[in-house]
Amino acid sequence: MELHGMKCEACLTGAPLVTHEDADKLNKLIPDWNIVEQEGMKRLERVFKFPDFAGALDFTNRVGKLAEENNHHPAILTEWGKVTVQWWTHKIGGLHMNDFIMAAKTDELF
Amino acid sequence: MELHGMKCEACLTGAPLVTHEDADKLNKLIPDWNIVEQEGMKRLERVFKFPDFAGALDFTNRVGKLAEENNHHPAILTEWGKVTVQWWTHKIGGLHMNDFIMAAKTDELF
Repeated sequence: MELHGMKCEACLTGAPLVTHEDADKLNKLIPDWNIVEQEGMKRLERVFKFPDFAGALDFTNRVGKLAEENNHHPAILTEWGKVTVQWWTHKIGGLHMNDFIMAAKTDELF
Repeated sequence: MELHGMKCEACLTGAPLVTHEDADKLNKLIPDWNIVEQEGMKRLERVFKFPDFAGALDFTNRVGKLAEENNHHPAILTEWGKVTVQWWTHKIGGLHMNDFIMAAKTDELF
């Protein structure tokens, strides 16, 4: 299974959260991402390192473009030399299959 | 006193933190910013709202350009419809006069 080749589908309210078991399996396909909990919702998080601020901001823009293309938007924290990306699905309060796909696509950009 | 017209000066290790009293006075000049504490360091924080993701990302880039021009870099959290900016001076572990100047310049961009 290659997540980055999959398509992110429109997520409606009431769509299923991934089960704990599926989350574990999917996480193994994107091993650089951690599942963190924030405001009571599980999120996928990865920190990407860069040699300067410009490199970080450029990556932020590439992730932003990916987000717009897929109509699914992450939280992107841009700092000097690093970008922290979080994917989750606000509408369903946690992790959808889409989030794992977007995380894999983000890895591809890096 | 107009902060946004002032110049952000190179900040060396050992440069003075603003005093609690000065921070209060300076904060009155940029009333939309809150002083928050993170990892034991005081930071200036403001949330800017936008109608969509593209507007938020565009603002992130404008703040990034301002940061590069002044060689002083904030944390910029980009999300759908909002950007959270934090200014502080890592080198001295808190708030320098420069941070208040950069906050005022960020307000000007908005």
